[in-house]
Amino acid sequence: MKNVRMILVGFGTVGRGIAKVMELKKNKFAIFNINPRIVAICEYNGCIINDAGIPTQGVLKLAEERRLESHKDWKNLKSLEVIKETEADIVIEVTPTSLETGEPGTSHMKAALESGKHLVTSNKGPLALHFKELNDLARKKNVEFRYEATVCGGMPTFNLVRKTLALNSIESIQGILNGTTNYILTKMHNSNLSFEVALREAKEMGIAEANYRYDIEAIDPAAKLVILANAIMGKNVKFSDVKRVGIDKITTEAVQLAKKKNFVIKLIGEISKDRLEVVPRLVPSIHPLNVPDTLNALLFKTDLAREVLVVGRGAGQLETTSAIFSDIIDICTSVS
Amino acid sequence: MKNVRMILVGFGTVGRGIAKVMELKKNKFAIFNINPRIVAICEYNGCIINDAGIPTQGVLKLAEERRLESHKDWKNLKSLEVIKETEADIVIEVTPTSLETGEPGTSHMKAALESGKHLVTSNKGPLALHFKELNDLARKKNVEFRYEATVCGGMPTFNLVRKTLALNSIESIQGILNGTTNYILTKMHNSNLSFEVALREAKEMGIAEANYRYDIEAIDPAAKLVILANAIMGKNVKFSDVKRVGIDKITTEAVQLAKKKNFVIKLIGEISKDRLEVVPRLVPSIHPLNVPDTLNALLFKTDLAREVLVVGRGAGQLETTSAIFSDIIDICTSVS
Repeated sequence: MKNVRMILVGFGTVGRGIAKVMELKKNKFAIFNINPRIVAICEYNGCIINDAGIPTQGVLKLAEERRLESHKDWKNLKSLEVIKETEADIVIEVTPTSLETGEPGTSHMKAALESGKHLVTSNKGPLALHFKELNDLARKKNVEFRYEATVCGGMPTFNLVRKTLALNSIESIQGILNGTTNYILTKMHNSNLSFEVALREAKEMGIAEANYRYDIEAIDPAAKLVILANAIMGKNVKFSDVKRVGIDKITTEAVQLAKKKNFVIKLIGEISKDRLEVVPRLVPSIHPLNVPDTLNALLFKTDLAREVLVVGRGAGQLETTSAIFSDIIDICTSVS
Repeated sequence: MKNVRMILVGFGTVGRGIAKVMELKKNKFAIFNINPRIVAICEYNGCIINDAGIPTQGVLKLAEERRLESHKDWKNLKSLEVIKETEADIVIEVTPTSLETGEPGTSHMKAALESGKHLVTSNKGPLALHFKELNDLARKKNVEFRYEATVCGGMPTFNLVRKTLALNSIESIQGILNGTTNYILTKMHNSNLSFEVALREAKEMGIAEANYRYDIEAIDPAAKLVILANAIMGKNVKFSDVKRVGIDKITTEAVQLAKKKNFVIKLIGEISKDRLEVVPRLVPSIHPLNVPDTLNALLFKTDLAREVLVVGRGAGQLETTSAIFSDIIDICTSVS
């Protein structure tokens, strides 16, 4: 049984999800011959450190009560110090994403890789802005840099290509990379709602969050497209290279006219020889990318397996931890 | 660079596909830090052996010309001897499948595992009949037993669950496990054909093969369902446990009536708490399992990632080799 020490950087929804799943699945790790433990949890104002492993239940309760600082192992240390100086195998970076600065994630990630630790993250900002730099650093330090949860949450994406399509060349990727806009477009189509009313409903449902403009202006899916292009297609593109059109100008009339002709309007991302774009497109109703509600979908065209479509949940606490643990387990069971 | 010696048992469509892809992708193996070579190719009447690696192009040409026996390294040896006595890391068993006897595959597989070699196969007969026995033997011998290509060809299935949904519990599986019947039902739906005419068309297209009754009587998908149930859901079920209804009694009228009501008739396999069956079902047109033509699809319900749908090509030479190499590469890059 291999002991795996992990530093958890960020203890919001995703970080707590990881602690929750560690508890929920504690008997399942033995199947993979690993014994993971969280040796540090970093928050913006300090951290909890315990090399013997931090018991998850106590720490989850304190986090719920917003008094993590009262934990017996709380220290007033900065995350960067903890990442660099704590003995650990894997750093899990799950702080809130920023597509403007990429911070604090980028600094955390660099510190993790620089100090020779494997890195697993759900934080897409740093990858959308600095993928090549982070990837090169990981190679130089001979550690794993894994980011399954950054694109399409619990839906298998990078590990699908890496593990199940290993020998294939990926010729193009098309897909739906944002659940909020897909929900709004589904409501406009099925219930004949205007964009404004569908958006309001998405807000009330908690689907559209405070930063909903990132979704409706296609900024979020464009960031994901950049990560896909660089990580899977071996490109070296920037966010500003993506042609990007949002969904806020789409009228009820356009959606209903499409419907009459057996089409749907979907916000489609595409990476191919000629295209790097996220734009609303007319898609035939029977097309495999016509998936409803908040679902995400990716259609890979490959040289051996030909078309492979995957559909799943692009967000959610447990969904995201599913992706994070697929990275962690793969790191622990692969030849380094 | 790790040298990987492979014995190829069977040199029909799939076996030749492997040789073809070895040549086609020879520069790509270095990415995985492996250097694979085929040290033996076994056919029913003898084999070619060369520990330095059998050059693929020459052997493919001879196979096309049906004179494999004239190869300079041809030996009149039985496959079982070669499997047991040739020094190798992996046996790739790709002989024709038999759902009645499981032979000659089962004997080949046992010999491979008994002699401490990893086993990769596309041959579903032995697995549908003897999964537990083969799996137990692999565990006892501490070797890998991998069978991605046995179910749904190039579509990621077992490795999807194993690698991308590693920590999830799979609660149920529903899907379309047979391309021939899906093609026939699609034609009956879209083109208003009778079962007989659609079947004839499928035969003319080379989609329905000589053993087409295996497809239309749902024998082939039921065999796949047994493998899925035993391998993914940890059950211990037999072929005779599967409730099985074919598609040959489905009338044009039934299909067209369903169509009017926005339904399609699909041959759906299901493994869940209460069901182990392959039966024709009414599926809403907008349901994710409504995939056309020869496509296969599986919908996994899981506890963390929730629903994950995968759609892909269930047959084809290169598609099948995609699955076989995903197994081979995973064996070579995983901690044993």
